[in-house]
Amino acid sequence: MPRFAYVDGRYVPHAKACVHIEDRGFQFADAVYEVIAIRGGVLMDERGHIDRLVRSLNELKIALPMSIAALQLVMRELVRRNRVHDAALYMQITRGQAPRDFRFGPGLVPTLVMTVRRADFSHAKQLADGLSVMAVRDIRWARPDIKTVMLLPSSLAKMHAIEQGADDAWLVDADGYVTEGSSNNAWIVTGDGEIVTRPADGRILKGVTRNALQHVAKLFQLRIVERPFTIAEAQSAREAFTTSASAFVLPVVSIDGKPVGDGKPGPVARDLRAQYLAYSNGAHGAPIGWTPS
Amino acid sequence: MPRFAYVDGRYVPHAKACVHIEDRGFQFADAVYEVIAIRGGVLMDERGHIDRLVRSLNELKIALPMSIAALQLVMRELVRRNRVHDAALYMQITRGQAPRDFRFGPGLVPTLVMTVRRADFSHAKQLADGLSVMAVRDIRWARPDIKTVMLLPSSLAKMHAIEQGADDAWLVDADGYVTEGSSNNAWIVTGDGEIVTRPADGRILKGVTRNALQHVAKLFQLRIVERPFTIAEAQSAREAFTTSASAFVLPVVSIDGKPVGDGKPGPVARDLRAQYLAYSNGAHGAPIGWTPS
Repeated sequence: MPRFAYVDGRYVPHAKACVHIEDRGFQFADAVYEVIAIRGGVLMDERGHIDRLVRSLNELKIALPMSIAALQLVMRELVRRNRVHDAALYMQITRGQAPRDFRFGPGLVPTLVMTVRRADFSHAKQLADGLSVMAVRDIRWARPDIKTVMLLPSSLAKMHAIEQGADDAWLVDADGYVTEGSSNNAWIVTGDGEIVTRPADGRILKGVTRNALQHVAKLFQLRIVERPFTIAEAQSAREAFTTSASAFVLPVVSIDGKPVGDGKPGPVARDLRAQYLAYSNGAHGAPIGWTPS
Repeated sequence: MPRFAYVDGRYVPHAKACVHIEDRGFQFADAVYEVIAIRGGVLMDERGHIDRLVRSLNELKIALPMSIAALQLVMRELVRRNRVHDAALYMQITRGQAPRDFRFGPGLVPTLVMTVRRADFSHAKQLADGLSVMAVRDIRWARPDIKTVMLLPSSLAKMHAIEQGADDAWLVDADGYVTEGSSNNAWIVTGDGEIVTRPADGRILKGVTRNALQHVAKLFQLRIVERPFTIAEAQSAREAFTTSASAFVLPVVSIDGKPVGDGKPGPVARDLRAQYLAYSNGAHGAPIGWTPS
């Protein structure tokens, strides 16, 4: 079956989907993006992702290329054309195309690109084995709270961790505190059962799944604490885990080669994942067939 | 006359030149670039730019997509097809195209994009009036020494300066020292005639024109000192100026609204520009017709 992408008003065969070489997304990393999981035909946390997309655009003063309702219709039409049930929807909005210049004018027309890719959300191996992570210095720019495509340092951090035999990197700031994972938020469960993640202090991306998990945890009367933690504290925690839009909740079982807890996936991460998935299929998600307001 | 660009082995009409939406240059800012001025048909500082391009690629472990000799032939052929005499040549090399993933495999084929655009290198207005610059906090990632397309913070800094009525931004680090301009290196001339620029300490891009100017200055027995300086020191300097590949040397006459020296373009910047241009047309540049080794 042919795969389709959406580029600036047209549904095109994925293999032929392209943007101009003078698109500012290509020459200046002047673009924002979102990844939304589609699970069982449901766009997970759609509102959360769209709210964050709008925030990212506002921070950079990039206009929304169409109304949110129209954007939601494009998302649904692309999902429909690709006939996917479990998939990742990627959308990227750039400031637009212009002759290369550090200055940009107010009249640029934003570029909108969207892809859909089939995904397996069982994460069987990661759930059974857990992830090993490695501390890597956080060398990103000072605005990681904006979800831009300035992703080279995160990609390099992940590759560095993989080359050292780990599954992923946890980024560490100049003061020794974990900021977040290469493409996920970082969490620990302390010895007395507190679930800890770094506050959205401008040094992390405020994950949509992170927010949803906080909400879910409150429903189950779990104790969530927002404070920074170090690699050493994470290593001596009872559990550790990550959250992201496409991997939901995944257990972390070793950090810099040291086992976390008993070195096996823990019950808090497992339960939070189950609760998040149950929750997101209900009030939290919006079915594909749903007509956006 | 039609304008041509080069994209991955083909010379294509500029308006139709595109890269795939899953090029890592577009989705991860995983790409490096160079801008080379072509003045009177001469590729200025060609060797310096190619050396730096190779260094940037090596730092990111991106392969050169072809031999340097072949790259130089493409540059010349693109210049020839565009029939330009004074122009800016832009080349960008990305890690290649791959299904979106923070991980990347070793087998990617780098994408090579090249454009040529006519330019006016007289810079009449800037030389007559001088530039006003404004201090903006340097919020870039920790590896600005690699010439990547992670340019959003530099572009935003420049726009912020322009919105405040200045011509450009000078980036300032957490300790209050100037790193560099938004797309150029920053220099001052002290009261006792020292020509000062920040050392290539990893916090700046080591400008090719900066290097050439240091060489030229030595030929003329001028005193160049590499050390960081603050905005306050620059404001009380005798002169200030910037260097870049496409603007060469431009005088800075005010910083954060305070005039530098007498508030007019100074003689040191003027002379250095003239000497640089004379020098680069000789030993330093390579004529278009030159056969690369």
